[in-house]
Amino acid sequence: MSVSKEFARYVTGLTFAQLPSEVVAFTKTCILDWLGSAYAGAKKPPVQMMAQVAAELGGAEQATLMTGGRSSVTHAALVNGAASHIVELDDIHKASIIHAGTVVIPAALAVAQWQQKSGEELIEAIVAGYEVCYRIGEAVSPSHYYFWHNTATCGTFGAAVAAGKLLGLDEEQLVHTLGSAGTQAAGLWEFIEDGAMSKQLHPGKAAMNGILAALLAQKGFTAASKILEGNRGFVRAMSQEANAEQMTQGLGSTYKIMENSFKIHASCRHTHHAIDLILEMIAQHAISWREVERVRVQTYQVALTITDNPNPASVYAAKFSLQYCTALALVKGSAGLRDFSEEALYDPAIRKVMSRVEVAVDPIMDARYPETWEATVELTFTDGTTLKKHTEYPKGDPENPVSHDDIVQKFLALSVDLPQDSILHDLQMVERLEQVPDVALLFAQGRGWV
Amino acid sequence: MSVSKEFARYVTGLTFAQLPSEVVAFTKTCILDWLGSAYAGAKKPPVQMMAQVAAELGGAEQATLMTGGRSSVTHAALVNGAASHIVELDDIHKASIIHAGTVVIPAALAVAQWQQKSGEELIEAIVAGYEVCYRIGEAVSPSHYYFWHNTATCGTFGAAVAAGKLLGLDEEQLVHTLGSAGTQAAGLWEFIEDGAMSKQLHPGKAAMNGILAALLAQKGFTAASKILEGNRGFVRAMSQEANAEQMTQGLGSTYKIMENSFKIHASCRHTHHAIDLILEMIAQHAISWREVERVRVQTYQVALTITDNPNPASVYAAKFSLQYCTALALVKGSAGLRDFSEEALYDPAIRKVMSRVEVAVDPIMDARYPETWEATVELTFTDGTTLKKHTEYPKGDPENPVSHDDIVQKFLALSVDLPQDSILHDLQMVERLEQVPDVALLFAQGRGWV
Repeated sequence: MSVSKEFARYVTGLTFAQLPSEVVAFTKTCILDWLGSAYAGAKKPPVQMMAQVAAELGGAEQATLMTGGRSSVTHAALVNGAASHIVELDDIHKASIIHAGTVVIPAALAVAQWQQKSGEELIEAIVAGYEVCYRIGEAVSPSHYYFWHNTATCGTFGAAVAAGKLLGLDEEQLVHTLGSAGTQAAGLWEFIEDGAMSKQLHPGKAAMNGILAALLAQKGFTAASKILEGNRGFVRAMSQEANAEQMTQGLGSTYKIMENSFKIHASCRHTHHAIDLILEMIAQHAISWREVERVRVQTYQVALTITDNPNPASVYAAKFSLQYCTALALVKGSAGLRDFSEEALYDPAIRKVMSRVEVAVDPIMDARYPETWEATVELTFTDGTTLKKHTEYPKGDPENPVSHDDIVQKFLALSVDLPQDSILHDLQMVERLEQVPDVALLFAQGRGWV
Repeated sequence: MSVSKEFARYVTGLTFAQLPSEVVAFTKTCILDWLGSAYAGAKKPPVQMMAQVAAELGGAEQATLMTGGRSSVTHAALVNGAASHIVELDDIHKASIIHAGTVVIPAALAVAQWQQKSGEELIEAIVAGYEVCYRIGEAVSPSHYYFWHNTATCGTFGAAVAAGKLLGLDEEQLVHTLGSAGTQAAGLWEFIEDGAMSKQLHPGKAAMNGILAALLAQKGFTAASKILEGNRGFVRAMSQEANAEQMTQGLGSTYKIMENSFKIHASCRHTHHAIDLILEMIAQHAISWREVERVRVQTYQVALTITDNPNPASVYAAKFSLQYCTALALVKGSAGLRDFSEEALYDPAIRKVMSRVEVAVDPIMDARYPETWEATVELTFTDGTTLKKHTEYPKGDPENPVSHDDIVQKFLALSVDLPQDSILHDLQMVERLEQVPDVALLFAQGRGWV
């Protein structure tokens, strides 16, 4: 049986009734986490630009845009996917290196709103979407990630099956949905050299392409039956691995969404271990950055490939600078959304500490990546003493979890600009989502979510 | 200077005034050739399915769909790109293996109609689009083509610059346009294993993505500055070649659109040499297929890799069978769109002649491919006599050109279902396109093109 066929059978077979209660609860936490990120990102210029393009192109009023108003489900997915990724606080899965929320949830939410699906159905679709894209991402890791933005490429499949599930597609249609998803999958890392806005285009576009794939399949549009494992398919074209068959091992017996990690700091996940360690040191010892002569961060290679940047020139680039993030944590004692600001970018204290930060690869940590995302931080003080701490798991990983309440607090912090009644409405809706008969009710009468 | 910057400078600098008259005339031929294919394809089921999705999603009434009505420029490009590729009669560039017309023209036409650009501006944009995507395709050939559908991947860049040119983007915006185009570029060959409809999704989606890239850049959206040659860019991620710098050699001194080939027969290009030779023999000698005992076709390996199929089971497969196409030409004396039909698929005479067709590789021809696409056809008659002919270039290649009148005839054949006045209107409009002040006038008042 082809991989697509196995995935399609799994997706059509999945029912809300079979989901353990902790999976339902955890999925709602993912949705709330996503929503906070989307609120916080909606007013950012790149998202506004995308919303402007969507408004220009127009569309049926099917789904709500986080930027305000409604448009087609594809445009809603495009804009909301972008909105939920830009503040770099959306969820992440280590083994597949995918931010599934920012692709799967906007696609599922748009289709569920349009088709007036129940909260149960929305949860089902999101669980299915996470499962499929995480499994695909794991099979093509690590080589795929060198060139390709897994969130965009693998995420397309997750968005596609979530949309397909909500549209009630049958097994064969879902095979075609996966085929059309895979042949649209795109997103190169090259933009990171310029800190360009493609990072937001990628998840939005993946969510949009996933919906398009499902809508086409619904109309009878056919695609490759072996898009994943075929000789000229996704895995062979876009990775050095040839592990497509591994993708479906144990399928149906796992809920990979439970492996999700949440981000507490507003920067690239590859900087979180160092930030955590600095914050722990500050909590445990009375440390002043003025007394720190040298900061040594050892970690795995990928962290440096992406975040070794001793001189970030924008707030966005600062979130992808291990040196900056480490220094920021040391100077400010936190690394939240408001800590990364234009004022903080060239803050003399942070810049001074940055110049003292050294980053290096540790071969043992590197060998264990991506099972663990490790780092050691060693501080050397002006008096010659040192302090050293190590972590295997940044906070928010399943092995070092945050609570649902932590995510509620994070949501409140991210949605602070919204009217109080909106925030309460959202919180209540998400908390009892499985009882909501119609997802369209999440979008209060007469207003968008912002 | 980055490759994108060089392309951007070329595109902004290109003016209609500098185009030699033969380039203007040839571009109009390309447009007419495209239009015929689009008419012929508009009613095909895969195109109708895409139009159905576009209608469902809705959009501002900016541009005309070949399937009828109007929608957003992105939806028009999506549907019209698909429509113009499906009958396998659209133009082709040998060296880059790109059908540029089916991606660049629908993107340019939609934006030109929306923005009420002149015929001169439309021609300019199309020349620029062909130039850029042909150059990119050449630099990543041949390796890219194994996994990737060049028309879709490289075509995205062509559509993007054509749209960007018509939107009046400046050099920097065009660099971002190319960046956003490249990071959306997709389209895997895997679908060919199933003969699936992705072949139509690819050009439509490339045209749509190209426009999206340009619209985003217009709003200030940034992207990778070195999307082509960068370490994690298009060339390194998607080909074995690392020839990005070659892309811009001689840029500005060539008009690569002039290297375009046109298809006269409604089948795979790799069958055209044999069809040409059979038709020439019929024209020069009084040949009846009943007297032909044996047909021997010698050619290059790639032709056989793709078209050695002694028993095609669908009309679409028949177009990719060298044996079928050779027999069809011998029995019917032509190989046009209407010759390939359900009735003809199992026509006893064609099947009888097919059983007498032998195909083989000629090492000398194989060594000269792809500079020449050669074949020899030898007929052996029941009376023992033989007839033999050889060609280096299928008809429609620049080295064996068709005339503008041939393309007019082809257009008339492809648009035969349309009302006479529509056909005449289109012919007149395209013939004097450089005098048309507003491309929207091409779309006669109150009706779509079909």
